[in-house]
Amino acid sequence: MTDYTALANGGIASIRPYQAGKPISEVKRELGLEDITKLASNENPFGMGRKAAAAAVAAIADCNFYPDPSGFSLKRRLREKFGYDESCVTLGAGSNELINLLFQLFANAGTRVVMPEYSFIVYPMEATVGAAQVTEVPLRDYTVDLDALAAACDAGTRIVVLANPSNPLGTAVDNRKVKEFLGKIRPETLVVIDEAYNEFNEDPNYVDSATLIGEHPNLVVSRTFSKAYGLAGLRVGYMVSNPEISSLLNRLRAPFNVSAPALAAAEAALDDDEFLAMVVRSNNQERRRYQEFCDAHGLRMIPSEANFVAIDFAREAKPISDALLRRGLIVRPVANYRLPTFLRISIGTPEQNDRLFAALSEVLRDGTGS
Amino acid sequence: MTDYTALANGGIASIRPYQAGKPISEVKRELGLEDITKLASNENPFGMGRKAAAAAVAAIADCNFYPDPSGFSLKRRLREKFGYDESCVTLGAGSNELINLLFQLFANAGTRVVMPEYSFIVYPMEATVGAAQVTEVPLRDYTVDLDALAAACDAGTRIVVLANPSNPLGTAVDNRKVKEFLGKIRPETLVVIDEAYNEFNEDPNYVDSATLIGEHPNLVVSRTFSKAYGLAGLRVGYMVSNPEISSLLNRLRAPFNVSAPALAAAEAALDDDEFLAMVVRSNNQERRRYQEFCDAHGLRMIPSEANFVAIDFAREAKPISDALLRRGLIVRPVANYRLPTFLRISIGTPEQNDRLFAALSEVLRDGTGS
Repeated sequence: MTDYTALANGGIASIRPYQAGKPISEVKRELGLEDITKLASNENPFGMGRKAAAAAVAAIADCNFYPDPSGFSLKRRLREKFGYDESCVTLGAGSNELINLLFQLFANAGTRVVMPEYSFIVYPMEATVGAAQVTEVPLRDYTVDLDALAAACDAGTRIVVLANPSNPLGTAVDNRKVKEFLGKIRPETLVVIDEAYNEFNEDPNYVDSATLIGEHPNLVVSRTFSKAYGLAGLRVGYMVSNPEISSLLNRLRAPFNVSAPALAAAEAALDDDEFLAMVVRSNNQERRRYQEFCDAHGLRMIPSEANFVAIDFAREAKPISDALLRRGLIVRPVANYRLPTFLRISIGTPEQNDRLFAALSEVLRDGTGS
Repeated sequence: MTDYTALANGGIASIRPYQAGKPISEVKRELGLEDITKLASNENPFGMGRKAAAAAVAAIADCNFYPDPSGFSLKRRLREKFGYDESCVTLGAGSNELINLLFQLFANAGTRVVMPEYSFIVYPMEATVGAAQVTEVPLRDYTVDLDALAAACDAGTRIVVLANPSNPLGTAVDNRKVKEFLGKIRPETLVVIDEAYNEFNEDPNYVDSATLIGEHPNLVVSRTFSKAYGLAGLRVGYMVSNPEISSLLNRLRAPFNVSAPALAAAEAALDDDEFLAMVVRSNNQERRRYQEFCDAHGLRMIPSEANFVAIDFAREAKPISDALLRRGLIVRPVANYRLPTFLRISIGTPEQNDRLFAALSEVLRDGTGS
């Protein structure tokens, strides 16, 4: 029989499928559990805002029609709210699609892609799809080392990509330092900053890195509505870049890549500042409770600026995650990120976190076999 | 300034953006019209079925969670209904995404892509993205000439792609002849059959081409829920292929490429045989009325097996389409397909078609300037 795998372009045949968190329904089936709390995929524990949900539901009625291929209305709202010119914006089915497109556009066998160690697994996967060479740069104290990252970029580097805050660790670099970093990168090297968790930033001196694109046309910033806005199931995000790059991305994407309910919900979500503020306030308060819990139990929690925390148990963490699962709590082992002693736990509602703290206390006290 | 376009891979920089039909809202704005009938994008004039709509609406409530990345439930339903093993199926955000992925997987500068003349514009665009060489094969009587298509495939041909029924012409080749065609194609040439309009086939001797994959592992069939099922705005389709190819496609796609409401609605749509039968029955009855109208007005209508008709006005058709637009009817000029004397008109409800017939009679009688 013909070897179709051998015919596949680039490094597609060598990538392994993304290991997504288990859907709740599957865990219920497997364990015969009814009451499950999923703190595994950095989803919004409060759902989505009522305005967004109403807009999505209303959009279903017209879903026999194709969605607006230009995303006219959502792009206008993004401009009104954040000042991004429509010509600089590409909409995608989540920022994951946009990152894939950016790599499809620019990564190839003759180029190098530079990223920090422990990067979101999609970046090395997409570099591999394009058969680009990957260089990983060590962190400093589990945080992206911008100086080392800049130093690792050479003339053959087509893309340097980092998440800020990072995933799965949650650490952030000060947005104000991005400018300094950009000053060190060649203009022909694209600097991709994945800001999926950006909205959880409460720094009063916050600088929107996307506003630096005029000065640094090699900067590309991706954002998502999946996290703080709670639209993960609808699939919508956006990428801000210079107009030349967004023109290329818009040619490459499928014309109807974002569904009509997703476009409508994202636009409505941008009008719901109250919901967003509540989500961020609760998340960041609860994050402090995670720190207290870890301090009280002698566990190291990596300082997080996101809606999840990475905790080092200083021993194989999988049995702990399994024991939590038997108690109805899904968290995320990150051994696939070469962090086998860590668990990544998404920050839930106060009640969900209480449940996690109680279960984890029990597991730590009794051992994992109980 | 750096020339980012020059850094783009393959032929991406040379493709032109897809020209989608105008959204109704935009036409209303432009013309100050209130009552618009859109017969331009082969959308379902009856909406979507109530079961599908209810499932989509219900799914919104949980859209803070990511969709099931494996599409477990929809794939199971496809197996139950059509017999496709889950290992042979890839789900996508419409069949457009799946066709893009297939080309990303297999087309490259060293390969040739063969397709009939007047093919759906996405195929040459995606071949160009991959910098593959495109060979177009003339039609015979506006219908795909399978013999000529087979003859055009040489050892350097990686993909031969055809739509059945075709778009924008609507003609179909007998599904039973696909087998014979497959017998002539080298196993290392992938045969991609885009069956977006497949459900409108009422041939009592219909053979599901996807069932031929066991015997012909180079066959790839794409389907969509956008047309007969009426889910265009939700973005969901599927591709059936041999498991080796679907494994590659599933590695290449983004893990959450199909939204949760789309997955839920597609599954529910497969349970609504009554709605589908009503849609197909009405469409095919109304298609005969289009034939009668064209006969009565001395216009050539290309025989269609789809939910649209291509009509040859034997003169530049754009002014006719403009005159229809002023009367509140959106149809599709296809000059971009090198068919400047044709209009493609989607078949509406009986009432919508009445309106189209009345307006078109008027335009043909009075000339287009009125």
